[in-house]
Amino acid sequence: MSRVSGRHFLQIPGPTPVPERVLRAMDKAVIDHRGPEFAKLGLHVLERVKTIFKTKTHVFIFPASGTGAWESSLANTLDPGDKVLMFETGHFAFLWKNMASRLGLEVDFIESDWRSGVDAGAIEAKLREDKDHAIKAVCVVHNETSTGTTSHMDQVRKAIDAANHPALFMVDTVSSLAAIDYRHDEWGVDVAVCGSQKGLMLPPGLGFTAVSDKAMAVSRDAKLRRAFFAWDEMETHNKAGFFPYTPATSLLYGLAEAIDMLHEEGLDNVFARHKRYGEAVRRAVAHWGLEIVSRDSKFHSPVVTTILMPEGNGGDAFRKLALDKFDVSLGAGLSKLADKIFRIGHIGDTNDLTILAALAGVEMSLGLAEIPHKKGGVQAAMDYFASAANGTMAAAAE
Amino acid sequence: MSRVSGRHFLQIPGPTPVPERVLRAMDKAVIDHRGPEFAKLGLHVLERVKTIFKTKTHVFIFPASGTGAWESSLANTLDPGDKVLMFETGHFAFLWKNMASRLGLEVDFIESDWRSGVDAGAIEAKLREDKDHAIKAVCVVHNETSTGTTSHMDQVRKAIDAANHPALFMVDTVSSLAAIDYRHDEWGVDVAVCGSQKGLMLPPGLGFTAVSDKAMAVSRDAKLRRAFFAWDEMETHNKAGFFPYTPATSLLYGLAEAIDMLHEEGLDNVFARHKRYGEAVRRAVAHWGLEIVSRDSKFHSPVVTTILMPEGNGGDAFRKLALDKFDVSLGAGLSKLADKIFRIGHIGDTNDLTILAALAGVEMSLGLAEIPHKKGGVQAAMDYFASAANGTMAAAAE
Amino acid sequence: MSRVSGRHFLQIPGPTPVPERVLRAMDKAVIDHRGPEFAKLGLHVLERVKTIFKTKTHVFIFPASGTGAWESSLANTLDPGDKVLMFETGHFAFLWKNMASRLGLEVDFIESDWRSGVDAGAIEAKLREDKDHAIKAVCVVHNETSTGTTSHMDQVRKAIDAANHPALFMVDTVSSLAAIDYRHDEWGVDVAVCGSQKGLMLPPGLGFTAVSDKAMAVSRDAKLRRAFFAWDEMETHNKAGFFPYTPATSLLYGLAEAIDMLHEEGLDNVFARHKRYGEAVRRAVAHWGLEIVSRDSKFHSPVVTTILMPEGNGGDAFRKLALDKFDVSLGAGLSKLADKIFRIGHIGDTNDLTILAALAGVEMSLGLAEIPHKKGGVQAAMDYFASAANGTMAAAAE
Amino acid sequence: MSRVSGRHFLQIPGPTPVPERVLRAMDKAVIDHRGPEFAKLGLHVLERVKTIFKTKTHVFIFPASGTGAWESSLANTLDPGDKVLMFETGHFAFLWKNMASRLGLEVDFIESDWRSGVDAGAIEAKLREDKDHAIKAVCVVHNETSTGTTSHMDQVRKAIDAANHPALFMVDTVSSLAAIDYRHDEWGVDVAVCGSQKGLMLPPGLGFTAVSDKAMAVSRDAKLRRAFFAWDEMETHNKAGFFPYTPATSLLYGLAEAIDMLHEEGLDNVFARHKRYGEAVRRAVAHWGLEIVSRDSKFHSPVVTTILMPEGNGGDAFRKLALDKFDVSLGAGLSKLADKIFRIGHIGDTNDLTILAALAGVEMSLGLAEIPHKKGGVQAAMDYFASAANGTMAAAAE
Repeated sequence: MSRVSGRHFLQIPGPTPVPERVLRAMDKAVIDHRGPEFAKLGLHVLERVKTIFKTKTHVFIFPASGTGAWESSLANTLDPGDKVLMFETGHFAFLWKNMASRLGLEVDFIESDWRSGVDAGAIEAKLREDKDHAIKAVCVVHNETSTGTTSHMDQVRKAIDAANHPALFMVDTVSSLAAIDYRHDEWGVDVAVCGSQKGLMLPPGLGFTAVSDKAMAVSRDAKLRRAFFAWDEMETHNKAGFFPYTPATSLLYGLAEAIDMLHEEGLDNVFARHKRYGEAVRRAVAHWGLEIVSRDSKFHSPVVTTILMPEGNGGDAFRKLALDKFDVSLGAGLSKLADKIFRIGHIGDTNDLTILAALAGVEMSLGLAEIPHKKGGVQAAMDYFASAANGTMAAAAE
Repeated sequence: MSRVSGRHFLQIPGPTPVPERVLRAMDKAVIDHRGPEFAKLGLHVLERVKTIFKTKTHVFIFPASGTGAWESSLANTLDPGDKVLMFETGHFAFLWKNMASRLGLEVDFIESDWRSGVDAGAIEAKLREDKDHAIKAVCVVHNETSTGTTSHMDQVRKAIDAANHPALFMVDTVSSLAAIDYRHDEWGVDVAVCGSQKGLMLPPGLGFTAVSDKAMAVSRDAKLRRAFFAWDEMETHNKAGFFPYTPATSLLYGLAEAIDMLHEEGLDNVFARHKRYGEAVRRAVAHWGLEIVSRDSKFHSPVVTTILMPEGNGGDAFRKLALDKFDVSLGAGLSKLADKIFRIGHIGDTNDLTILAALAGVEMSLGLAEIPHKKGGVQAAMDYFASAANGTMAAAAE
Repeated sequence: MSRVSGRHFLQIPGPTPVPERVLRAMDKAVIDHRGPEFAKLGLHVLERVKTIFKTKTHVFIFPASGTGAWESSLANTLDPGDKVLMFETGHFAFLWKNMASRLGLEVDFIESDWRSGVDAGAIEAKLREDKDHAIKAVCVVHNETSTGTTSHMDQVRKAIDAANHPALFMVDTVSSLAAIDYRHDEWGVDVAVCGSQKGLMLPPGLGFTAVSDKAMAVSRDAKLRRAFFAWDEMETHNKAGFFPYTPATSLLYGLAEAIDMLHEEGLDNVFARHKRYGEAVRRAVAHWGLEIVSRDSKFHSPVVTTILMPEGNGGDAFRKLALDKFDVSLGAGLSKLADKIFRIGHIGDTNDLTILAALAGVEMSLGLAEIPHKKGGVQAAMDYFASAANGTMAAAAE
Repeated sequence: MSRVSGRHFLQIPGPTPVPERVLRAMDKAVIDHRGPEFAKLGLHVLERVKTIFKTKTHVFIFPASGTGAWESSLANTLDPGDKVLMFETGHFAFLWKNMASRLGLEVDFIESDWRSGVDAGAIEAKLREDKDHAIKAVCVVHNETSTGTTSHMDQVRKAIDAANHPALFMVDTVSSLAAIDYRHDEWGVDVAVCGSQKGLMLPPGLGFTAVSDKAMAVSRDAKLRRAFFAWDEMETHNKAGFFPYTPATSLLYGLAEAIDMLHEEGLDNVFARHKRYGEAVRRAVAHWGLEIVSRDSKFHSPVVTTILMPEGNGGDAFRKLALDKFDVSLGAGLSKLADKIFRIGHIGDTNDLTILAALAGVEMSLGLAEIPHKKGGVQAAMDYFASAANGTMAAAAE
């Protein structure tokens, strides 16, 4: 096979492109995970990562993935047979539900058509019905990576409060943290679950749980079995900057660097940047005359756009063509969306020109695949990006 | 603080020094974990890693640690309340026992004084007593990292066979694999547990379970709860080179490189090299007049030597002095050995001169700390290494 | 200053983006430049680099730059006061002339307006006039990086032959080698001069001279003073893979990797790829209604396009805007083109989407700078790239 | 060939081991060498490097080597046929003389037996004899890498002053800078010459000249031909942080990092550290009963020790054995010392344990090669290092 030249365009909604600075921070000799140098690193990242979750309580870091963090969230807080309320935003909500079932929980799963975000009203209704508080936790996905919908966590909080329900509030922030505004303490979230390979711009290999004091208290008596993902031993060891077993030291170096980078840019700038990408991509898609899965603009995701293939065209063949011809990786359809869609990720360490390149790859591939569409989507996105840049020019000129 | 110049000497029994080639193999752009390039990598490492375990059946790779792999070994094969037989070789045997308890298993723990390896006869006796086969698994540590003893897995296998007992045979190979000969299929091990950061020369972040067909069959009905560490979904996804959730891609690149390096050197050469280190270190210690924890030469470890501090001297202050003065990290005493010992790791990507440097750091520190000892330990190790090198000269000359 | 996110677009005609593989090959411990491992590396790259120049004679590698290689070409072959014939293709031809003057040579400089390549007829005429062979060398630039014109070296060779003139034929291949077809032996070039940071995809730091047997013979008696750039000591040491003084070992590792990559892709594929970029960029520029410096299509460069700014618009302010707004680096106008043009480099390790991103950055910047142009240049380039990709589809389908 | 495990011991007097931080600083995307980001880097390193030479005037950085810097020192300041006074400290003094001859200078070479440093008295005598000031420059090597002697530049300065002679004072600091105290301005040196791969801890590829105002003034009219190594164009471009041709950008990143590291440690600590290494190595050699080339303790080098092989033993075979058996690279004998000596480099980013490891490799190899020696050299070095470390303990305790 002949070499593919130039830079690959990784336009999936995670893993996201790891910045050179983060890669280099990780590319160093491993150190003693029980020595003083490591203790400094451990205390540093354990404290700093809180600024990303916007919490002052507890964040635990596991050498795992977001899936592991899901397990940690449930296994530390619930008893076998406990009921949890979940909302079917899409594939990842579905997987979390499966995990809950595997762990022996009863799941009340509010079904949905995968085309919108969480219906806070439905949550509230369920909780109001639950007079005896059988529901122990409400678990929702902040940004549903499979469909490109972002739900409103503040509204879910309000729904729980309105129902005056004591359930724990758990949020999957895997593809939202450090890309979409997330406010752990302000929104009264009890457990947030995240991974390293999305907004945090790291390779995969870390799972995070941000834990409220309430959830910590509940975890003292929770009866689900847990060992690797247990919080109690983590909490003890973390106090000195250490971990109960060997942590993924390389990724922790990378994490320290990534957090620095996020703050150098400014979290608000990061969030604004992702919104800009989302808008540009949707304008291109609209121009092409294709439909996106997210039906309601209030749920459109700033980090990933899921595009329906026109009837009779398979998403997987299309993605393969784009990869073969233009070296751009697009996201696949998952479970019930398999082969029906493709996803453009616009998350992490990227920029306007990279997004335009990805859109150009998609538009040219639409042509090569003879999928009906109207040319000019890239131009539409360029017009939007240019006007956005002009705004900053005007602002700077004032 | 002023900069410390030169290379750090990481002489703990893991994490071990990561070779430049492995670090560079990991230092690359992250790829789509669902794309064709990843599938090739996945299939490649899943197959190649079997050559290190010397198995033809199944090896599962988790983005976790050896501790996670322990959980995986138990949770996939056992029912709540099952009895397991374990042997107290030291701290890590003790931790595995704790994990079993946390997971709801009953542990029959053969106590020992942490100064020798597994007593296969004691295992056999226990199994013979267990007429109704209440014991579902025998779990032992191949190399006990806390004490520096290596047990004989072939003898444990023989003990189980002699007792004609159907228990699963589980082995912790965390600090032995790829440093001490381990033969999964030949020794009839059902589940071997490992991590990435020792003989495999990788940063921490991967956990492995090598699984026999018998254990796979048992896992179909095992009732302990498991999700992240479950084998069933791993098996399904692994067939195509994929994983049920985002794997630690960077480490998988490194794993491929590390396996290449091990085979370039030759596994038998790797094992011989570690034996040589062990002998050299013990000669130095003996010359100093210090005592090692491992009491019986048949259990002496090729990868780590645990040295008792003379009465009245704390191990931790000594280690701190060696680190401060000579930039060498030594292993700490764990739980009941805390502050009573120090450990010299001699495992992984290292060589004779590095071991001698470490010994020189120890010997000079013994002097500075005014710990009674006889000078000349380094010289004793040099004499041994030189004669070993001479042997290869003689052999080459023939 | 806030962090700039995502990948920089380095669209200058060199240094070009260094591929990850090359960067990693260089990122390793330095070795003894007089040891056996280095000798192997030295012999390997000295031999392999010949395949890129398409020569079987001599290639010398200096820890320097293309400018150093220029000096080496002249200083090893000429006497003080010798006359050389040069052709003013642009800024780099002009700099080479200046160097010749600094070294004490007399330069017959065929002037030109910087808008076309070498006029082989003019060369021939000069040589025919030179009855007593005062001209000792004909020095021309293969690809003039400042203007974006590529000259035809085979025609210059024919011109020299037609005039039956014994002058040495010297060619600056700095921005052509490994991007535009260059045939050292077939074209009878006596000295080719190159640097590492263009088609060879390395960081700057190496200068190359490819030398014919005729030039080597001439160099034995050439009287210009030389030491660092002398060929005689290089030739002696190179025989064993060594160098007369410490070579730039890191870059030699990178060179070995870069040559492998070029051959993996296939040199003909590399050349075709650059032609495709050139055509796409020119279509975009033509659509915008802007003029390029190269006036004659037979001289259009596959590696860089130089675009005239419309009257009243400064090139430097425009480049600054593109850099500030879209993080794309464009090439500046040099000497008499200062501020009058901007250059788009399309050379080295790049691909269609990256070129389109660069064009999008330029087109949006034209809009923001209110420079008169017609939108749609990116679309024109996309149409061309798509049709080119389609061609390969059709071809593959046959 | 089987893999060699562990870290190589590069114990030659340069290139020296490049620290991880420097390698990582260099391992990044190449940038536009004419853009604003580069200008900042250029200005930064051009200014910062002065602190290492201890000068406030000019330092020029060439993409070359120390040899190139030699050429630059001579070619910018002298006329053809000028006489220079040089002192034969060893091989590198000899090579500099050869270069001067190649460049058309007349060399008055004070011969010596390569076993001591510069005899300042002999310099003074020569200058006093030179009534008509035919000698235009005095060129001496600060640390003679081939023999392990360090000369006293302050005394040479005094000799020139005592003779009241206007000759320029040029110093080769290639293997001394950033390892042995060097004071450009205080000692009135006119041109100092250096390379990147020794005390500066970088890979090879940069040559430096530190230039006094007097030398700059002289260079305006100096008539030797120069182009690549000319100071005039460098001076012009450097003012804005740029270079007249493409600089070795990667190495400049590394240089910035290396300078930071040197200052973090403190130059005086760096110098003290190297003195400690020299003393330890000489104690080992003395214990072995071997002779070093440097005859007078006032010239013993802190950065390299050259050891005479006992009669009848070849240095090259010995070095090969040490490399093959223990993966330690030792320095070779050069020109008239070829095969008669071996050199232990103890320069750059290293530490006590690494030096001891190297000594252990040498001592074991002496045994394997059956070279007469008394065992215990490593022990002698350990005793010295321990007492030195104890001194810092005592000091810290006060």
